[in-house]
Amino acid sequence: MAQTAKRIVLASRPVGEPTAANFRLEDYPVPTPGAGEVLLRTIWLSLDPYMRGRMSEGPSYSAPVPVDGVMEGGTVCEVMASDNPAFAKGDIVLSHSGWQQYALSDGKGLRKLDPKAAPISTALGVLGMPGMTAYMGLLQIGQPKAGETVVVAAASGAVGSAVGQIAKIKGARAIGIAGGKDKCAYVKNELGFDACLDHRDPDLAARLKEACPNGIDVYFENVGGKVFDAVFPLLNFFARIPVCGLIADYNTIFGKDTPTPPWANAIMRAILVKRLTFRGFIVRDFDAKFPDFIRDMPQWLREGKLKHREFVTEGIESAPAAFMGLLKGANFGKQLVRVGPDKL
Amino acid sequence: MAQTAKRIVLASRPVGEPTAANFRLEDYPVPTPGAGEVLLRTIWLSLDPYMRGRMSEGPSYSAPVPVDGVMEGGTVCEVMASDNPAFAKGDIVLSHSGWQQYALSDGKGLRKLDPKAAPISTALGVLGMPGMTAYMGLLQIGQPKAGETVVVAAASGAVGSAVGQIAKIKGARAIGIAGGKDKCAYVKNELGFDACLDHRDPDLAARLKEACPNGIDVYFENVGGKVFDAVFPLLNFFARIPVCGLIADYNTIFGKDTPTPPWANAIMRAILVKRLTFRGFIVRDFDAKFPDFIRDMPQWLREGKLKHREFVTEGIESAPAAFMGLLKGANFGKQLVRVGPDKL
Repeated sequence: MAQTAKRIVLASRPVGEPTAANFRLEDYPVPTPGAGEVLLRTIWLSLDPYMRGRMSEGPSYSAPVPVDGVMEGGTVCEVMASDNPAFAKGDIVLSHSGWQQYALSDGKGLRKLDPKAAPISTALGVLGMPGMTAYMGLLQIGQPKAGETVVVAAASGAVGSAVGQIAKIKGARAIGIAGGKDKCAYVKNELGFDACLDHRDPDLAARLKEACPNGIDVYFENVGGKVFDAVFPLLNFFARIPVCGLIADYNTIFGKDTPTPPWANAIMRAILVKRLTFRGFIVRDFDAKFPDFIRDMPQWLREGKLKHREFVTEGIESAPAAFMGLLKGANFGKQLVRVGPDKL
Repeated sequence: MAQTAKRIVLASRPVGEPTAANFRLEDYPVPTPGAGEVLLRTIWLSLDPYMRGRMSEGPSYSAPVPVDGVMEGGTVCEVMASDNPAFAKGDIVLSHSGWQQYALSDGKGLRKLDPKAAPISTALGVLGMPGMTAYMGLLQIGQPKAGETVVVAAASGAVGSAVGQIAKIKGARAIGIAGGKDKCAYVKNELGFDACLDHRDPDLAARLKEACPNGIDVYFENVGGKVFDAVFPLLNFFARIPVCGLIADYNTIFGKDTPTPPWANAIMRAILVKRLTFRGFIVRDFDAKFPDFIRDMPQWLREGKLKHREFVTEGIESAPAAFMGLLKGANFGKQLVRVGPDKL
């Protein structure tokens, strides 16, 4: 009789903020690999804001998760059985097998990891998609010059923490925005940003102006909402704004037909007069530059120029609550779910 | 006794749409050049939408014209007297001497024109600032590829007509938008655009969708307003939007503290999801590329690949009414004022 495993499926599409009722924990039989397939056991599951988009229908980067489908997500897995000559039992691989304990793969899109080179969980964080998002968005679009001012929100998170540290490596000033005193202290004292402001401060706009006496040259947009409101008047002529995410607005955007974010007003005029560049991107757009990323980032990590922090919840059952927390900033560092031990 | 000349000064700052009361016709004595100076006699005055911005205070590219100051503008002038060794009596020069019949210059910023190479008025149009605006905005920011669809409004005007024709030279499809049947017929039949739509058509959005079956890859933004509304949903993934002007909104933008153009809503979401690039520019930003412009555009003009049309009013007194007409699209072609004859 097949062994039983657990997975999380999308029970229903959220309207606005997701709730526990939108997810369902299911048992399912551990599958058996067919010709050319491998059986993956999930060790780490990454939770990321983009998943909110996948829960709703409507145009986005990718097709939505179907109702009753397994929630998607990046994973680090152990190969438990293989009928694919490229992979052997015991291999550790980066996959995208979703919110489940076991999955089959035909091997496409799997990348083998070397557990001796770096902790395997970093392949989902600083050395993975979030790290590459920071690296590409900042360097390809933001293009900070020495002495310029770079602002990033969600600064203690997986993407934001890397953005600010890479800005510092390039000689720019890095100003972070994060939620609460502990995160701000970490961003300033441990990550080495020049300053970090609390987005809950009712005087955020004034604080930001003080922290950016020469204005803002690069705003790495992760959040939108009131942070963008505070940033917008401080943008310098020729500022670059890589638009990576709008987490403050995801529940609005994906829950209404006609979002009307107040901070969108006057954007076009500022683009014209200040010759701003706003450019949306997702990390896949820069796949051709992956060799640059994988050359620089592990080296910076080894040299201690790049620090990172993980925020771990235990067990696949914890994923829905952890994800709902992520959308509210309850995590402190890269949100991961430890689905299983490194070795059974 | 000094000869008397005429000039137009800014009598008061407009609120919303400019009126005749915002301008004043004045007599003034023709000045005498001092050490190193030249006396310029205006032959052609260019009228351009950017001048609306100069009439108001508030952040824009440049300082506003002071109240009681001479309205600024590009001119083609004859040198009447010179104490500057770089210029001789009789030289024809490109200047920025404003809405007046005579002006002094220290020679800085003057460019000598060769009346045999091209009609001197083209230095204010297709071979001047508007032509260079089209060339740089389209090629440096829009970067149309063969087979892509380029849309431009104010398509019979100085900038728009060059944008579409350069797009065709580069192998792209060019769709124009203009005001009225005559302008649309000219854009399609004489300039060779693939189609031209009337922005007064109540079904503009539907007509544009029909004319762009593969969506829009480059939208050269001259106007904003309802044209942008029609364009916005048709923007393809990775579309580029050089933001050159927002003429439909100038009277709003420069007349209110908090413009709230309805078409700004949802811009940020589209930038993110479709990975759009919006980039504001003014032609001066590309001064370093002037050699490319002055190599290509006169050649295209000689080869008949680039056509242009001028819309001329007579006498400095006609400038205010012509400018107010320009803001409403009353001109058909590059708006010029013939201030004086080629030779006295």
